[in-house]
Amino acid sequence: MNIILHDVCLRDGLQMEQQTVPTPVKLGWLRRLVRTGVDVVQVGSFVHPGKVPQMADTDDLFRQLLSAGDVPAGVALSGLVLNEKGLERALACGVGMLCMGVSASETHSRKNTGMSVGEAGGRIIAMAHRAAAAGHDVQVSVQSAFGCGFEGAIPAATVLQIVRRYFEAGLTRISLADTAGHATPDRVEELFGEIRKLNPAAELACHFHDTYGMGLANIWAAIRAGVTSLECSVGGLGGCPFTKIAGGNVCTEDLVHMLQHMGIRSDVRLDGLTSLAGAIAEHLGRELPGRIYRTGAIPEFEPAHA
Amino acid sequence: MNIILHDVCLRDGLQMEQQTVPTPVKLGWLRRLVRTGVDVVQVGSFVHPGKVPQMADTDDLFRQLLSAGDVPAGVALSGLVLNEKGLERALACGVGMLCMGVSASETHSRKNTGMSVGEAGGRIIAMAHRAAAAGHDVQVSVQSAFGCGFEGAIPAATVLQIVRRYFEAGLTRISLADTAGHATPDRVEELFGEIRKLNPAAELACHFHDTYGMGLANIWAAIRAGVTSLECSVGGLGGCPFTKIAGGNVCTEDLVHMLQHMGIRSDVRLDGLTSLAGAIAEHLGRELPGRIYRTGAIPEFEPAHA
Repeated sequence: MNIILHDVCLRDGLQMEQQTVPTPVKLGWLRRLVRTGVDVVQVGSFVHPGKVPQMADTDDLFRQLLSAGDVPAGVALSGLVLNEKGLERALACGVGMLCMGVSASETHSRKNTGMSVGEAGGRIIAMAHRAAAAGHDVQVSVQSAFGCGFEGAIPAATVLQIVRRYFEAGLTRISLADTAGHATPDRVEELFGEIRKLNPAAELACHFHDTYGMGLANIWAAIRAGVTSLECSVGGLGGCPFTKIAGGNVCTEDLVHMLQHMGIRSDVRLDGLTSLAGAIAEHLGRELPGRIYRTGAIPEFEPAHA
Repeated sequence: MNIILHDVCLRDGLQMEQQTVPTPVKLGWLRRLVRTGVDVVQVGSFVHPGKVPQMADTDDLFRQLLSAGDVPAGVALSGLVLNEKGLERALACGVGMLCMGVSASETHSRKNTGMSVGEAGGRIIAMAHRAAAAGHDVQVSVQSAFGCGFEGAIPAATVLQIVRRYFEAGLTRISLADTAGHATPDRVEELFGEIRKLNPAAELACHFHDTYGMGLANIWAAIRAGVTSLECSVGGLGGCPFTKIAGGNVCTEDLVHMLQHMGIRSDVRLDGLTSLAGAIAEHLGRELPGRIYRTGAIPEFEPAHA
């Protein structure tokens, strides 16, 4: 089974933190992360530095990582782009994969972009075309695809309409993001199943928040539905703005641990991920939601019987 | 979908606790639990009171609950029985459903019973026949069905051999217990799928520990494979003796929350479960592994759009 791991800890994890992590510390974490065997590492987002100071060094991080030759062959660096200004910056940095998207929730869309879902979709498609024309990989997403912290339920038809528009625009690398953590495994299988019917050749990605503890269940449902790119975050870092506790993203090392016990992605260095989670927890001065960096993995045993 | 919820908090949860919870406190919890809408509530186990002092009041709890008429119609009380002496006590108490089982691991079986898997199986079948002849519901289980904390991997063939023996003995209510938390969703689907091939009419139950965070993923896999009885524990209480941290059982209220968002078991009172989890956490003086009693459920929303 060809499963791609896309870690978003440095972006979706750190953007919610109270404290801004210094650039040299981030660089150290990124250098460890790109050597664990995950396929794509999200470095940051190209947002206004005044609005999200935690992400102000994104351009600098890309330049330092790429110029120092720190990134092993086969590992891609991704960056999140929210608008044309960010796109300019990302193109100038040589970002490998550009990620961008729209929310399926009108309220969420207007709060984040000041635009309706339809308007935001047109803008994202234009940006995606520009990035693709410049030779970059592009992933387009639907945020709040399984429910919205402002609106509640999001009809599948709303999500499918956005995805259909992406397909019509020739964009076939699609991520559904469960921004609020409302996804349940039955809906995950249904919605990705519908998308595969629209375009069986699409490359599907999922981004789940573990707010309500359903992260790995949703991942299993997504894998069953043919999703091949799994977004995750070391330590399970990443908050959900809609609940009191930080459930975080699906935890990279917990996910890798599960996959490896299913015989998938044994090439990824679980110990590298758990030690990095420990280092991040120590720097932030608190326990992270991830479990395996605290429990350890299922032990390996010598065969007890012939 | 006809899903049965079997809460084992008072047994599997409390037997691992350092402190013994006083009988009146347990009674208060049980009275709340039987009114939440879960179908089966495990009261305790009939073990030697000297060996497991946390369970010494099991007979007393059954008598008080049953004599006071505290148990609503349709709710069954279950008890775990390990040997003939315990069986005598359970039969004398009028336990609704007797649960008993063998380990699929030779090491685990010998440590727990002093018998081989084969010997223990013969004894359990004889006990199950006696309980059934006395008019009781009986559930027989295979412990360490997905891996063992002493031995590691357990071959599916070993589990299937025990299950086949149960079927041949006319015992068709079967639970697979993931004692060490090693189960992964792919193996859950495979193993329960094999069992359903052996006997499509069997009533299948699952008992997962969330040691490594895979509990709800395994539950979803089990539901897909046709399992109808889900064992769980309020607050996620319950330790695993094989790891440093207490991952606990699959948490009842987190499970009910997931099910309800899939349109299953909307009759269960989630608020009754979360408030009970809070009370148990307060009595034990620590945070429990369960998540929903701390986050709250996914909020309900007024429709935002026509």
